[in-house]
Amino acid sequence: MGLTYQMKMKIPFDMADMNGHIKLPDVILLSLQVSGMQSIELGVSDKDMLEQYNLVWIITDYDIDVTRLPRFAEEITIETEALTYNRLFCYRRFTIFDEAGEAIIQMMATFVLMDRDSRKVHAVEPEIVAPYQSDFSKKLLRGPKYPALENPVSKDYHVRFYDLDMNGHVNNSKYLDWIFEVMGADFLMKYIPKKIHLKYVKEVRPGGMIASSYDLDGLQSNHQISSEGEVNAQALVTWQEFNQES
Amino acid sequence: MGLTYQMKMKIPFDMADMNGHIKLPDVILLSLQVSGMQSIELGVSDKDMLEQYNLVWIITDYDIDVTRLPRFAEEITIETEALTYNRLFCYRRFTIFDEAGEAIIQMMATFVLMDRDSRKVHAVEPEIVAPYQSDFSKKLLRGPKYPALENPVSKDYHVRFYDLDMNGHVNNSKYLDWIFEVMGADFLMKYIPKKIHLKYVKEVRPGGMIASSYDLDGLQSNHQISSEGEVNAQALVTWQEFNQES
Repeated sequence: MGLTYQMKMKIPFDMADMNGHIKLPDVILLSLQVSGMQSIELGVSDKDMLEQYNLVWIITDYDIDVTRLPRFAEEITIETEALTYNRLFCYRRFTIFDEAGEAIIQMMATFVLMDRDSRKVHAVEPEIVAPYQSDFSKKLLRGPKYPALENPVSKDYHVRFYDLDMNGHVNNSKYLDWIFEVMGADFLMKYIPKKIHLKYVKEVRPGGMIASSYDLDGLQSNHQISSEGEVNAQALVTWQEFNQES
Repeated sequence: MGLTYQMKMKIPFDMADMNGHIKLPDVILLSLQVSGMQSIELGVSDKDMLEQYNLVWIITDYDIDVTRLPRFAEEITIETEALTYNRLFCYRRFTIFDEAGEAIIQMMATFVLMDRDSRKVHAVEPEIVAPYQSDFSKKLLRGPKYPALENPVSKDYHVRFYDLDMNGHVNNSKYLDWIFEVMGADFLMKYIPKKIHLKYVKEVRPGGMIASSYDLDGLQSNHQISSEGEVNAQALVTWQEFNQES
C-alpha cells in the first residue's frame, strides 16, 4: 500500500449548488489539490516533473462512487493514496470522509505520464513513483465498455478562456461540468450521481465549441463529449434520487 | 476603523489561467470566503443573519484596483475590514498582499442587507454591524457614471445550473466571468485589468440566457450584462498590458 495524505476542509458557499450539495467538478478540483500537495511533500511536485523530466501527469479515467454528497459548511476529509503502478498506468484512490468518519465518496483515478513536447505517453519511471511507496502490479484496471448513444439529446457549449489551465488544456473537471449541465436543472434538482465512469479519449482544443450528448435509460445515462467530429470523452452515469430533507 | 481579518493561502493550479494568473472571479470568491469567515468568528455568520433576522448580505458594487495578479503557487494574504456603514450601505475593504507584503490588489465592496422574502433592501441594524467595530459615517461612496454602449460587441451565454448558488441566485463572481470571457482569448493573453468598476443592477434569473456586451476605446472597456431586455450589471474596465516575463 502507498502512503496516504489527507486534507480537512469545510465546503465553502461558492462550491455548493442549488441543493446545498458540493458541485461534482469541485470534488475533482479539490482531490487534485490534495494529490498535488502530497507530491510537493514527497519532493516530486508537478513542477519537479516538468523541470527534471519534461513530463506531466494526466488523468485518463475516473471511477466515482457516491454514497451522498457533502453539503455547504460540512467538514470533510479528503484522503488520497497512490495504490499501484505498472509500466504505463498509476492508480490513485481518493476517499472523502464526513465528520463521522463515513466514506461518502470514493474515487479511483488512472494517471499516466505524458511528455510535454511530444504529447505522447511516457513509461512510468520507478524513481518517480518510489516516494509514494505504491506497489508495482501488472493488474490493469479496465473501465466499462461505453456503448454508442441512441437518439441522444445534445447541447453545444463554448470552450471558454477560463476553462483552460496554465498549459492551455481544458481542466479535466470541466468535462464533468458539461456532462451534468446538459441534464438540465429539473433533473439535477432531483438526482445526484451514484456511480460515474469517465474516460478521456482526446483533448478538447481551446477556442471552439463542444457538444455534450447523452441518452437516458431509467436511471442510467450514457454520455459523450465531442468536437470537430471526434469523441473527446465518454461517461456512464447511474443516478440516485436524493433525500430533499437531509 | 474596523477589525481586520486575514487568510493566507497559495494559489492552486485550478485557479490559474493560461498566463498563470489567478482568475479574477476567483479573487471575488476567495474574498467572500474571508469575509464570511470573519463573520463566523464574530458570531454574526450568514447563517445567523438568515435564522435570526431573515436577512442576507448582497453586494451592489465593486471597485477593484489591480497592481498585478498573483500567480500559480504564489502565497498571498487576503485581508478584509468592514470600514464604515450608514443607514443602507456597508463598505468593506479587501486587500491582497504578496509575500513581500506589497498590496497587489485592492477591492472595495458595497454590501446591503436584503430581506429574504420581500427581496427588498433592509436598513442596517447597528447591532448587526457592531461586532465588526466599523464606524458609522454618512459619507456615501458613489460609483462612476456608466455611459451607454456605442456599437457594442455582444455574445450570449447560457445561465448554467452550476452558476447558481444555494439560494438560486447567480453567484456575483459569475458576472465578472461573462465580462472577461467576451473580450476573447487573444485580448486576455495580453491584458489584465488595472481598474474595475462593477455595479449590480438587477439579478439575472436562473435558466435563460444573458448577453455580455462591451465597447472598447483604447484601453478602456465599457460593459453591460443584460437579459430579457433589462440591464443586470454594468462595468467599466481599464486594462494594462502585463509583463509576459514575470
